[in-house]
Amino acid sequence: MKKFVNNVDEILTESLTGFGNAHKDILEVKLKPDFIARKSKPESPKVALISGGGSGHEPLHGGFVGYGMLDAACPGQIFSAPTPDQMEAASNHVHSGKGILFIVKNYSGDIMNFEMGADMIDHENQTIIVNDDVAVEDSTYTTGRRGVAGTMIVEKIVGSLAETGALLDECKKLGDHVNKMSASMGVAFTSCTVPAAGKPTFDIGENEMEFGVGIHGEPGRKRENIKTADEITSELMGAILEDLKPDNNQEVLLHANGFGGTPLMELYLLFNSAKNILDKKNIKVTRSLVGNFTTSLDMAGGSLTVTKIDNEIVKHWDSPVHTAALRWKI
Amino acid sequence: MKKFVNNVDEILTESLTGFGNAHKDILEVKLKPDFIARKSKPESPKVALISGGGSGHEPLHGGFVGYGMLDAACPGQIFSAPTPDQMEAASNHVHSGKGILFIVKNYSGDIMNFEMGADMIDHENQTIIVNDDVAVEDSTYTTGRRGVAGTMIVEKIVGSLAETGALLDECKKLGDHVNKMSASMGVAFTSCTVPAAGKPTFDIGENEMEFGVGIHGEPGRKRENIKTADEITSELMGAILEDLKPDNNQEVLLHANGFGGTPLMELYLLFNSAKNILDKKNIKVTRSLVGNFTTSLDMAGGSLTVTKIDNEIVKHWDSPVHTAALRWKI
Repeated sequence: MKKFVNNVDEILTESLTGFGNAHKDILEVKLKPDFIARKSKPESPKVALISGGGSGHEPLHGGFVGYGMLDAACPGQIFSAPTPDQMEAASNHVHSGKGILFIVKNYSGDIMNFEMGADMIDHENQTIIVNDDVAVEDSTYTTGRRGVAGTMIVEKIVGSLAETGALLDECKKLGDHVNKMSASMGVAFTSCTVPAAGKPTFDIGENEMEFGVGIHGEPGRKRENIKTADEITSELMGAILEDLKPDNNQEVLLHANGFGGTPLMELYLLFNSAKNILDKKNIKVTRSLVGNFTTSLDMAGGSLTVTKIDNEIVKHWDSPVHTAALRWKI
Repeated sequence: MKKFVNNVDEILTESLTGFGNAHKDILEVKLKPDFIARKSKPESPKVALISGGGSGHEPLHGGFVGYGMLDAACPGQIFSAPTPDQMEAASNHVHSGKGILFIVKNYSGDIMNFEMGADMIDHENQTIIVNDDVAVEDSTYTTGRRGVAGTMIVEKIVGSLAETGALLDECKKLGDHVNKMSASMGVAFTSCTVPAAGKPTFDIGENEMEFGVGIHGEPGRKRENIKTADEITSELMGAILEDLKPDNNQEVLLHANGFGGTPLMELYLLFNSAKNILDKKNIKVTRSLVGNFTTSLDMAGGSLTVTKIDNEIVKHWDSPVHTAALRWKI
């Protein structure tokens, strides 16, 4: 197995320890139960935002812990939901009296464990379920649509609102709104390799791609031969826009996300291709994000996310953020 | 070939166009000749820092154009030196009367073309040649040691000094100093695939790694079976420390860099492993950087860089920077 690894059972702990040491100024890593918490305590009470999910999607979610985004993240084992005690411990550590807002990608295991975690705490809490992936209804690990790269957009925007001292209901409402305004779809060129398995999650031919893939390698809409970037983008964008039905002149945030194994150079090309399509349709790309943010270990491929933006969304997208993986205006 | 690509001949142009559109607030992309220039003009004259090199190492160098780092970057074709007219055009665009400082990785083609570019301009100029890779003396494309991930550290630190209005000689001197204080070495688990070739640059067995690999897939010190992360790190760090000969209690910046195909989770594990070694040797890791910064397309693997820091270096490392790929305190 071609990985930097000592002992498969210790990957998460060793990686989290490195993460904590590399970003001491921003966050602290707690082990057993594992969670990552913002270092700077809020100056006044705020809604505490907690996300989490299986590991292997880094920088999601730990990379988004910090000022203007998450208060804590609960990393499960690779591609496995975090356990309820992690959410309990994180909640008790970061709450500051205005309630807890959980942000959860729509996977059955995550939903269940976050619900159990919520039951274990005394603090008022609500949950935003992100289900931005338009590829398929119901999937290997999901009832309904999957939550993918739109999640970090929800985290950024709600994180900003929470920073202003907004109420739990207000944060929940904005998060649900951003989720509804967002649609994503991706394509895989290769499988990822989960270290504990030691072999690729799925087989895929030399010239094949999985269209509409999930971020754990779950099947998408179809398996087909690789096409040009413009052809792929056209199909992805077709599905995304069919879902979002943007008006003429709608302003959007366009996010080209890499799954981990695809070079940045290609992600900018993917972004360019998607922007060309939106330009032609009179949809205005006024905010953009390109990079590996919601990954699937070493999977080659990527996804596109479009978020329709309004004054509220753009204000909170542009506001300061200071995390390991996303920083601006600070 | 499993890539987001339309036409192999247009990859660079399409990717650069996407890059320019995604980061309009920071930079502008000029085509034919290609260069990336900082958007914000300096308030008062400053030394203009220009780097460049073959494409395929993104975010190096274009991702480091912006306040506190580079004034311009000249991207060559994939793994090919930029042509002298690119350096000429970039120089004429960004100079502000205090001279030009070229920052060049030590590859024969880059050195030659940057020299020719320098001959074509009327502005006073000097060149810093970065050669931080301790793996091998003389290599496929290099006389002497190669320039690798230490380059962006030189760019950050000299970029900060230039921002203060320092003189060309002072910037050149600090850059040479940072280069001397830095040492790097990497390991490849897989080859990269250059799009124009359409197949992996080199063959490598299922369980093999290339120890001391170059960032274009050039051979390193040896081909051997994959070892544990700690064993790999111990050997890399052995070579790096043999070169740097740090004193007891020396403060260092530790940079774990991914080559593009290795997940962030592993890079933090690599960082952790390297920090453990330094801790045991009483070398203090007081600054850190983990991520894919100096890449080799889709190559799996990564490198470690150690920079011995002093008051001058740490001051300029910590200062504000605002580029596509590196942002803090701004």
